[in-house]
Amino acid sequence: MALRLGRLGAGPCWRALRGDYGQLRAWSPRGASARVSRLPGTAAPQPRRGLGHSPSAGGGSWLGTGLAAALAGFAGLAAAAFGHVQRAEMVPKSSGARSPSPGRREEDGDELARRCSAFMTSPVTDLRELRKRPEDIKTKMELMIMETQAQVCRALAQVDGVADFTVDRWERKEGGGGITCVLQDGRVFEKAGVSISVVHGNLSEEAASQMRGRGKVLKRKDGKLPFTAMGVSSVIHPKNPYAPTMHFNYRYFEVEEADGNTHWWFGGGCDLTPTYLNQEDAVHFHRTLKEACDQHGPDIYPKFKKWCDDYFYIVHRGERRGIGGIFFDDLNSPSKEEAFSFVKTCAEAVVPSYVPIVKKHCDDSFTPQDKLWQQLRRGRYVEFNLLYDRGTKFGLFTPGSRIESILMSLPLTARWEYMHSPPENSKEAEILEVLRHPKDWVH
Amino acid sequence: MALRLGRLGAGPCWRALRGDYGQLRAWSPRGASARVSRLPGTAAPQPRRGLGHSPSAGGGSWLGTGLAAALAGFAGLAAAAFGHVQRAEMVPKSSGARSPSPGRREEDGDELARRCSAFMTSPVTDLRELRKRPEDIKTKMELMIMETQAQVCRALAQVDGVADFTVDRWERKEGGGGITCVLQDGRVFEKAGVSISVVHGNLSEEAASQMRGRGKVLKRKDGKLPFTAMGVSSVIHPKNPYAPTMHFNYRYFEVEEADGNTHWWFGGGCDLTPTYLNQEDAVHFHRTLKEACDQHGPDIYPKFKKWCDDYFYIVHRGERRGIGGIFFDDLNSPSKEEAFSFVKTCAEAVVPSYVPIVKKHCDDSFTPQDKLWQQLRRGRYVEFNLLYDRGTKFGLFTPGSRIESILMSLPLTARWEYMHSPPENSKEAEILEVLRHPKDWVH
Repeated sequence: MALRLGRLGAGPCWRALRGDYGQLRAWSPRGASARVSRLPGTAAPQPRRGLGHSPSAGGGSWLGTGLAAALAGFAGLAAAAFGHVQRAEMVPKSSGARSPSPGRREEDGDELARRCSAFMTSPVTDLRELRKRPEDIKTKMELMIMETQAQVCRALAQVDGVADFTVDRWERKEGGGGITCVLQDGRVFEKAGVSISVVHGNLSEEAASQMRGRGKVLKRKDGKLPFTAMGVSSVIHPKNPYAPTMHFNYRYFEVEEADGNTHWWFGGGCDLTPTYLNQEDAVHFHRTLKEACDQHGPDIYPKFKKWCDDYFYIVHRGERRGIGGIFFDDLNSPSKEEAFSFVKTCAEAVVPSYVPIVKKHCDDSFTPQDKLWQQLRRGRYVEFNLLYDRGTKFGLFTPGSRIESILMSLPLTARWEYMHSPPENSKEAEILEVLRHPKDWVH
Repeated sequence: MALRLGRLGAGPCWRALRGDYGQLRAWSPRGASARVSRLPGTAAPQPRRGLGHSPSAGGGSWLGTGLAAALAGFAGLAAAAFGHVQRAEMVPKSSGARSPSPGRREEDGDELARRCSAFMTSPVTDLRELRKRPEDIKTKMELMIMETQAQVCRALAQVDGVADFTVDRWERKEGGGGITCVLQDGRVFEKAGVSISVVHGNLSEEAASQMRGRGKVLKRKDGKLPFTAMGVSSVIHPKNPYAPTMHFNYRYFEVEEADGNTHWWFGGGCDLTPTYLNQEDAVHFHRTLKEACDQHGPDIYPKFKKWCDDYFYIVHRGERRGIGGIFFDDLNSPSKEEAFSFVKTCAEAVVPSYVPIVKKHCDDSFTPQDKLWQQLRRGRYVEFNLLYDRGTKFGLFTPGSRIESILMSLPLTARWEYMHSPPENSKEAEILEVLRHPKDWVH
């Protein structure tokens, strides 16, 4: 089966690269998004070079892990209280360039407007502000997450063929806002959400003390710690039990200290949660992520693959949520530019790693029994997200969070049966075995 | 409508006491369960007398709150590992008296066997042990929770008319065990679970330190703190959206100190979660609980009603889980006997407070829209239980817990829709208003 997607608006084109699987690769007509920067230390494993994360990060942190979930919803309730929330169906593309400005440097104004015209709506940050700082990583990251959101939404809407994403823009009283795109109860998708957030303000004392616990001792500036956080976060639950659930998020965090020093780091990941095991899909998904990682160093994929298996662990069940993927946090080396380039490559791998799988299986025949097992697995997904996911919990417990954007990750429907236990040698037992004992899918 | 239930096995009889509502009251053929002890200080509000709980308890505690959920499952995984778990359909009544013994005092052997014959299966503690200490509050409590389990299961099975409870007996390696009764996917009930647990052993250092945090400084005996915990816990989810969900649990905890002192306390409560508001049902439910409380003092119901509204609060939604009932913890005065008598009265009020409501509505007609709203409310139930319920969380995070008994409380099915918001003046908005602003149902 070979897949070919037409050009989607002004976004990147997709072309099939591997025949057998119909694998998709992002390919930018401008060549920009296809550019990858190879990091130092990629020829051979050299742990002290290449991409790195601060050792204090250990198992991730609330400020990093799931930040897209947590910060995606930072402002909702406060915003709602002040009447700032807008809801809209598929904002016309022309609304992307809402504030043309003649003053610009490297990032040409028309070029920026052209990029924005492919987004689901205009960026959170005013275009005049983005034009002022074209080389700032915050500008690059915001444009990248907007682009990722548009790419993923358009690819999924095309697969669904019937339902489309609603675009829900919200603002945060204290600074920034977000754009939550949701497709619900479509032909192919039960619930698909792709949310971006760009928020800024001052870190609370509680947040700063949690950072101290992670080895980041920050000097306050007039008692304040200005921060910026942004990310894209997504969970896709298809209807067909043979089409797996996928989650990804990529995020950037920056804190400014009294002496002008800036602490910054990236985090993110992408993981697959099938109802039934399909070896070929698992290999395709992991291989696509590995190839993205390998462009930036040979030791990245194995490390971030293991981190993913460790993070998405439902302790009380002794199972992982799914068959993994990659996960990382506190990525702050070798440089902002190179770390950003890695995250960008990962974000570009989302559609080619997942969309061929969902296209392949969205019309598979299934029995009521298959659907029931899917619903039970959805229940485990809810258990992980509400009990263990640090981003979800941090978001929900932060006053003023946008609850709906955080809980967008929950499936439309889920089920819990007392003492359900699949028979030995069944296909339900087969996936459980893999969830209990993670495999290496790519050698 | 007047309800009349026939005699259920050797258990208590039920008779309609209030004509209009067909209210049921437990009435023991032996007169024993109808006996109530009026506590000191019930004639007028006298806060320092009557039932009391230790001031340190504040908003409850993991050791108390939800203990039935937490400890109901204390042993499961360990037990499963050692092959102790038994599953059985409705154990024959004769199995209740598994170890007749000639040695007895006040609690006559035949009388004990007769009581046990009405239970769902034999008690967790060996009958020889129970016969040795008939006056011990632990014996009385274990028999009371077994009786409550049987009463509730039989009343619900009779209402369902088709499905029956499976009886799942499990043992705990470290001491004790439990009996989990579940009726799933019946005619009337989507999922109904009634679980008892009786466990003993030594408190972990972590548990002891949590108790210190609550003002209970316990002196260890040879480095150990022997404890006994027991309780009955239940969540009933009917299928019909007009028949509300009900939860109750009643529990007892005892810790023995080095100097021979025993710390003891009771906890528990009973609360209703309707999908749609029915004023008459709400008043009936609260009035039945108030009448049970009033038998032990006039200030009990208002205090425990407020505690319930405070405890079942879904912070991130700004809603209560349901329309409340009663909730209490750390109840340790005026005496073990009197506190036990209060808890027993509350447990006896479960069937009359709830069963008439479910009988009244289980055949109500409903639309797919009503069912959808029920499923969304089920989602909120899951959010509360996984994010806030201390018993559930403590249970899940305790190694060796019996996960299935803890998560028995989750509904069979639940749903999450992005940005669902009922229209103004709808019946969905009506219940939300009450969940956001709890009402006094009984004046």
